[in-house]
Amino acid sequence: MRSIEEIIARQKIEETLARYCNHLDSMTLGDLGQLFTEDCVVSFGPNPDLEANGREALIASLARLWRWHRTAHHLCNVVIRFDTTKKATVQSRVHAWHETSDGAEAEIFGTYKDNMVKIDDKWLINTRRMEMNGSRGIFSLPVPAAFRKPPPKNWVKPINL
Amino acid sequence: MRSIEEIIARQKIEETLARYCNHLDSMTLGDLGQLFTEDCVVSFGPNPDLEANGREALIASLARLWRWHRTAHHLCNVVIRFDTTKKATVQSRVHAWHETSDGAEAEIFGTYKDNMVKIDDKWLINTRRMEMNGSRGIFSLPVPAAFRKPPPKNWVKPINL
Amino acid sequence: MRSIEEIIARQKIEETLARYCNHLDSMTLGDLGQLFTEDCVVSFGPNPDLEANGREALIASLARLWRWHRTAHHLCNVVIRFDTTKKATVQSRVHAWHETSDGAEAEIFGTYKDNMVKIDDKWLINTRRMEMNGSRGIFSLPVPAAFRKPPPKNWVKPINL
Repeated sequence: MRSIEEIIARQKIEETLARYCNHLDSMTLGDLGQLFTEDCVVSFGPNPDLEANGREALIASLARLWRWHRTAHHLCNVVIRFDTTKKATVQSRVHAWHETSDGAEAEIFGTYKDNMVKIDDKWLINTRRMEMNGSRGIFSLPVPAAFRKPPPKNWVKPINL
Repeated sequence: MRSIEEIIARQKIEETLARYCNHLDSMTLGDLGQLFTEDCVVSFGPNPDLEANGREALIASLARLWRWHRTAHHLCNVVIRFDTTKKATVQSRVHAWHETSDGAEAEIFGTYKDNMVKIDDKWLINTRRMEMNGSRGIFSLPVPAAFRKPPPKNWVKPINL
Repeated sequence: MRSIEEIIARQKIEETLARYCNHLDSMTLGDLGQLFTEDCVVSFGPNPDLEANGREALIASLARLWRWHRTAHHLCNVVIRFDTTKKATVQSRVHAWHETSDGAEAEIFGTYKDNMVKIDDKWLINTRRMEMNGSRGIFSLPVPAAFRKPPPKNWVKPINL
């Protein structure tokens, strides 16, 4: 049976993921940085401007979000696998909405693929890689596409749907 | 007080629901099928093309999602009631976004009404019925409308709002 | 280590928040009222029509949602801090979609800031304040803007993004 320690770890991991979104929307980047390990590696895509090595670089990089007037990041679909009692592989999904001061909008339906570690009593993000399931509006960052299995060769589009 | 067993069951049920969405978006339908009992009954509406009896039929039916180029299914609002320690009635909400290769979009704000069962150490979906709270874009499937109580006869639309 | 009691409290708090959204979308306002303390204070903004003192006033006030034909409220990003074993400060995020019978839409990306209390075995909302992170469509209620830290004076918009 799952241990109490694991039950608590799952709650804490979800809260770290939620706090990330909240701090990003309020641009409280110092607090956001505390959710990552000091040596974190974060990649939103192959563009060097979208990669950060270390907490300080991440905070500096996410300052780019100020090019938006308002944002909303909503997190869900959390799936956790523990590698040890102090390490976990975590996948989650995010609906990220952005608006310029002119009212132009951009949205991503994305995936976060994280490695998280327990340090003292906290679960922190050690590595994060973002992928994109969908998007609309003026979003143009080269976030890599999430994997989607292609149909088998004999697949036929249903007529009635 | 809620038992440890129930606490764990709640976490596992949420994860099954999350995994469903993730596998649907990656079209890894074999893995998706493992989240359902072999004799599952799933209905997305009265159209026979939207009903499936059994895991294999479900997998075959959900292959219809390949008519979309990209999708994103985001799950939330999970409410669980245990009927026994091995059976639960579960309601959740989904924001389902779909895009054709031409960039046309369709969205559903939906409800999943599930009966779930514990088999070995896993919580699987035994029956699922989908209802629709809202939609936009080109979505045209006859998913039944979710219940919404009508206003009382003396209700007056507020003037200021 | 977090107590079992706290683990359970966290699950119950999330369920109360989810049930609120579900009852709002089905307009089962009597059931919705049971999620609040009898003396609850709820504010969706400075407009007196958006404030309610007490459960009965809240139910009467939320009847305004019948001016929409359909709605969907999806909750996420829950962050909980316990003040005592029976009191918690809770923040969550909501994606609230509304549609008139003419098909006009309005959406809010909002924040709920709640004080919740344990009464008997239930976690109820005692005070709720809503803030708005973003919106689109015809929504015009004066929900107060959520805090967003402005950029530092030396911030420069990135060229490449």
